[in-house]
Amino acid sequence: MTPLPTAADVAALDAADPLRHFRERFTLPEGVIYLDGNSLGALPRQTPDRVAGVLHGEWGDGLIRSWNSAGWISAPQRVGAKIARLVGAAPHEVIVADSTSVNLHKLIVAALSAQRGRHVVLSEPGNFPTDLYMAETAIGSLGAGHRLALAPRDVLVAHITRDTALVMLTHVHYKTADMYDMAAITAAAHAQGALVLWDLSHSVGAVPLQLSACQADLAVGCGYKFLNGGPGAPAFLYVAARHQAALQSPLGGWMGHARPFEFVDGYEPAPGIARFLCGTPPILAVAALESGVDLHLEADMGQIAAKSRALATLFIELVEAHCHAYDVTLVGPPPGAPRGSHVSFRHPAGYAIMQALIDRGVIGDFRAPDIMRFGLTPLYLRFADVARAVEILADVLRTEAWRAPAYQVRRAVT
Amino acid sequence: MTPLPTAADVAALDAADPLRHFRERFTLPEGVIYLDGNSLGALPRQTPDRVAGVLHGEWGDGLIRSWNSAGWISAPQRVGAKIARLVGAAPHEVIVADSTSVNLHKLIVAALSAQRGRHVVLSEPGNFPTDLYMAETAIGSLGAGHRLALAPRDVLVAHITRDTALVMLTHVHYKTADMYDMAAITAAAHAQGALVLWDLSHSVGAVPLQLSACQADLAVGCGYKFLNGGPGAPAFLYVAARHQAALQSPLGGWMGHARPFEFVDGYEPAPGIARFLCGTPPILAVAALESGVDLHLEADMGQIAAKSRALATLFIELVEAHCHAYDVTLVGPPPGAPRGSHVSFRHPAGYAIMQALIDRGVIGDFRAPDIMRFGLTPLYLRFADVARAVEILADVLRTEAWRAPAYQVRRAVT
Repeated sequence: MTPLPTAADVAALDAADPLRHFRERFTLPEGVIYLDGNSLGALPRQTPDRVAGVLHGEWGDGLIRSWNSAGWISAPQRVGAKIARLVGAAPHEVIVADSTSVNLHKLIVAALSAQRGRHVVLSEPGNFPTDLYMAETAIGSLGAGHRLALAPRDVLVAHITRDTALVMLTHVHYKTADMYDMAAITAAAHAQGALVLWDLSHSVGAVPLQLSACQADLAVGCGYKFLNGGPGAPAFLYVAARHQAALQSPLGGWMGHARPFEFVDGYEPAPGIARFLCGTPPILAVAALESGVDLHLEADMGQIAAKSRALATLFIELVEAHCHAYDVTLVGPPPGAPRGSHVSFRHPAGYAIMQALIDRGVIGDFRAPDIMRFGLTPLYLRFADVARAVEILADVLRTEAWRAPAYQVRRAVT
Repeated sequence: MTPLPTAADVAALDAADPLRHFRERFTLPEGVIYLDGNSLGALPRQTPDRVAGVLHGEWGDGLIRSWNSAGWISAPQRVGAKIARLVGAAPHEVIVADSTSVNLHKLIVAALSAQRGRHVVLSEPGNFPTDLYMAETAIGSLGAGHRLALAPRDVLVAHITRDTALVMLTHVHYKTADMYDMAAITAAAHAQGALVLWDLSHSVGAVPLQLSACQADLAVGCGYKFLNGGPGAPAFLYVAARHQAALQSPLGGWMGHARPFEFVDGYEPAPGIARFLCGTPPILAVAALESGVDLHLEADMGQIAAKSRALATLFIELVEAHCHAYDVTLVGPPPGAPRGSHVSFRHPAGYAIMQALIDRGVIGDFRAPDIMRFGLTPLYLRFADVARAVEILADVLRTEAWRAPAYQVRRAVT
């Protein structure tokens, strides 16, 4: 084992960090070490001005004219094309729309409809709940003999058969940060004639993605995590260009129509990715998302990925060194293995420990039943923050501060 | 015929208007008479501060904690309960979620599923396109023998049969402002065992609504028109309490789960209206909507409705007096008849005329093929604005200013 990093080592890591100047581009409260940017990304400093510009100049003064003059009508495509650069797709393969959940429904139903004669949507137990719920309720509403099958990831590929219509997986697991080999799973699915739908919510902006190079079919992703688009930011979806003409959204709203402003009674899907739009795009929210995406595009994705790995390695090494006596167990990949940009530890009192940490300014989150999850966001986190967070965690464990009754009461936190 | 109102009459109407002080609560650009608030409502002056508070205080400083501490997690219910007061429903019967289009899908599919053995969704030709598209594509994806039937409104009731699962209508027509008798249609549908889904997009905030008193089953509505929630604001949906347990959303996302933060694999719908939530609510957009709704709730709905009728009567009388020589034809209800809060006129060159009007600061909109539509928003429009708009319209017609080539080129305007 390599020697534990010293304070000087940590300071040297920060001094050498090519992304260190991005921290000042975010608003971060005093006295807080924010390790939950994988759940809700921090506020980019430029975002309030961007949103104020939309409010005053575009909405207030431009009014209805801004649909054209301010480019509102093409905002889903414009911001989608920017996100395409972060996921390794062509500009016309990504569009901003609705929520991740709603986009899952569109693509699940579209895929099942295109894959007639196949009955199974295959996923894994413990996938992010909304993915499983959307598949279950979509299939339930279709009532056409489809079913949702779940297979653990270590045997998942063996469960892909000629009856598999769609493999639906979250690329980086929301609890464990385990990361699938996108190219390998996609190839295995294609070998059986199945399509794959990737949920990139915990990947986009955190790990390198190459949808085109992986021959990916379909994907969805979240705007409010590593993209820093704001609470409940609009989501995006990706449909490979080769599939766009054959797939139809079950949510065929007017914004997905070939000629929305002719106001005809019959539905005709737009020729490209726009057919996956539905209602009127939420312009204020799209503006905040675009601001976050723009900031991301200023940074080098290779540097983000390298820093993410280095932050995770430091965090894991320090926790294992300072907290191993207190029943804390690493969940997910070991240091150095492929992973997403959060780190999770299991502890029977995980909920109470997390409350005690939050009270001390270290904000992570808790995922039932016993997982403490810490997001490591390379754009605004310092190595010193990670080292300090582990000191506080070790102190909470050593002093058993988490036993205070106030920390035992459950509250909902997304 | 009563004598035409004079300038003094118009000034007297404004002086006596009990809502006149609401105009200063909105940001309205200089030199503009805004007659498109039925498409995109104007910016309430209080909204930028509200949104800035969410950005800086709640998102920037509160970060993930604001889901609890700032009440984000209950925002859909809280704002829904406020909208309930505008539509005559109980607080727990309305929730803010997604777009009008997506909400239509939820309720169409839920109703079809609950009405097994019935096959028909009945609507009218020329209903707002997204309503028809959502019904058509929902039915297409279900593939269960359902069909969308369209019957003109004058014979619509005769087409409601024992095979009608759902009657889906827009309460106030988006082009003509024709208004259905909600109680009568609902009763006729119930007599055949059918449910009714009302689209209130052009009604809410403009005309009095009494969903409970009408025994209404289901409704959806738009946040960015008369509610002044901002471009693409979140929509709302209503499900009568008596139906909530029996109806299930086909978009069963995690926010509609009975226990979303237990992260279990299986879907179980929340007991009440929350089951119609899907993904994470868009907090910035909900905040702007709430601001618009709050402002509305300061006004008296009876006064809003009375002023709406008076504005429409004045507008129609003046256009008929000053423009009748120029091939302008009133569409929809005559003065004094029940109507929504916009007025439409047909003209073969309607598109070009509207462009000429917009260039002169009178902003209405055009609806294919030949309709000029003028929204009359009681909270921020003066009777003098209506009179001045008609003067400008008459001038554009008399001088044939609309024949300029620049006004002939079509652009998309929502």
